[in-house]
Amino acid sequence: MLDALAHYQQRNIHHLNHWLAQLPYQEQSLLKAMHHGLLLGGKRARPFLVYATGNMLGLDEQYLDTPAAAIECIHAYSLIHDDLPAMDDDALRRGQPTCHIKFDEATAILTGDALQTLAFTILAEGALDANAEPQRIQMVQALARASGAAGMCIGQALDLAAENCQVSLAELEAIHRHKTGALICCAVTLGALAAGEKGVAILPQLARYSAAIGLAFQVQDDILDIISDTQTLGKPQGSDQALNKSTYPSLLGINGAIDKAQTLLQDALHALDAIPYNTQLLEEFARYVIERKN
Amino acid sequence: MLDALAHYQQRNIHHLNHWLAQLPYQEQSLLKAMHHGLLLGGKRARPFLVYATGNMLGLDEQYLDTPAAAIECIHAYSLIHDDLPAMDDDALRRGQPTCHIKFDEATAILTGDALQTLAFTILAEGALDANAEPQRIQMVQALARASGAAGMCIGQALDLAAENCQVSLAELEAIHRHKTGALICCAVTLGALAAGEKGVAILPQLARYSAAIGLAFQVQDDILDIISDTQTLGKPQGSDQALNKSTYPSLLGINGAIDKAQTLLQDALHALDAIPYNTQLLEEFARYVIERKN
Repeated sequence: MLDALAHYQQRNIHHLNHWLAQLPYQEQSLLKAMHHGLLLGGKRARPFLVYATGNMLGLDEQYLDTPAAAIECIHAYSLIHDDLPAMDDDALRRGQPTCHIKFDEATAILTGDALQTLAFTILAEGALDANAEPQRIQMVQALARASGAAGMCIGQALDLAAENCQVSLAELEAIHRHKTGALICCAVTLGALAAGEKGVAILPQLARYSAAIGLAFQVQDDILDIISDTQTLGKPQGSDQALNKSTYPSLLGINGAIDKAQTLLQDALHALDAIPYNTQLLEEFARYVIERKN
Repeated sequence: MLDALAHYQQRNIHHLNHWLAQLPYQEQSLLKAMHHGLLLGGKRARPFLVYATGNMLGLDEQYLDTPAAAIECIHAYSLIHDDLPAMDDDALRRGQPTCHIKFDEATAILTGDALQTLAFTILAEGALDANAEPQRIQMVQALARASGAAGMCIGQALDLAAENCQVSLAELEAIHRHKTGALICCAVTLGALAAGEKGVAILPQLARYSAAIGLAFQVQDDILDIISDTQTLGKPQGSDQALNKSTYPSLLGINGAIDKAQTLLQDALHALDAIPYNTQLLEEFARYVIERKN
């Protein structure tokens, strides 16, 4: 699985580089900042899920480059904006200075904006398998739903509103299902839609899988924010506590959070049992989500 | 024409309100700020151009609500982000406090982000005439091209880079063709695509028309920034000079800028001559662009 993750990381970076190279005004800070935010580092979990899902359905990876690139653009834009001084005010991301530190705030705002738009350009114009053309507009719908005011954006808004507040477990789950879960679910959905009707047929099972790993991802992030260190994380350790954020460990205790992650892993694996394809990569990824160190 | 402008303004606001009402978490600041940025005031020139173009092609206005709403979302998001302290740092817009003044910076950033996404949700999901369904993905492509790093975003980046610099007339034109021109052209394009094949057939003529009025719009904005007053404008008069921006009047003199606007009007009218439909509304709008007082 780690080999596949590394392979798809490289493939995604290569493909995104190809899209960036087509843009005008390469000498402008905006373009340099788009490179910085989009091509350097990152686990690229969302592209991986696109590739792994499509691959399971027998689709050649060349037809998965488009949705994988689009979803990484959305993720990269969200990181750049979340790191801004008015938001989480972070100086380090993926082991690099954040966009507004490396460039400036105006450039970071515009770069996030342009990366969001690029996601939709890629999804609307990029290569897809001929069988998936009827699903192209459905892919645009899914990406927009997952990233906007019904998905990731409201998740970040709820997260900001919850700073310095005591939130319940249900509220914390709602925050994360929107803030990170929606885009993780979308990655799996896009991988399935890229395979055409075959993929559409297993969307419910995939939704259960991705809902579980999306939340598990956040639980593990919360755990790592406590038990890991800044160098391993590539971002400041302890930043949740510094912002007085409610987290799974703060609500459940560290052992409760670890149990929660295990339960979610079992949910994810159970969902995969109902899928009549070789789910090995998706299974290994689910284990990786709660075993990773950064 | 002013009656039609007022009619389409109301129609656009009503339709956008309908989209906003479907979103979850209506009590959150994000949603309130989306209402503030999207529904209050504004000429709604871009929705007007969508409606006027589609109307000319015989399309019922109910099939133009979707592209008109989508393009206004992009425009509204761009205003919210452009007004941020790190960008143009404006406190007044459309006669109202800007989003980061009324709410806060984090909310303003997220609101712009969510409005951009909403544009793509609307365009991908909203009602279109059955004849225009084959053009839906082309509409998404056009909107993304016009608003991203090859269009509006790079225009804003070039504009910021030109602050406190002496730019040439060609450079100024390049800034505005991207920053405002691309989205104005896109409005006309979307109105045409919404009418299906009939609209596709006259895209070249419409492109010439909209390129001319897009630039004329900016020339007139520059003129009004000098000769108008804050109350009439609904935003601070003299803000270009305050930011040391190169403008058409600063490069050509006020009379040279007025001549430039006239020349662009003639270009626009000439382009309309080649269109075999009733172009009266588009013609009146071109005149309005350079005669308006705010």
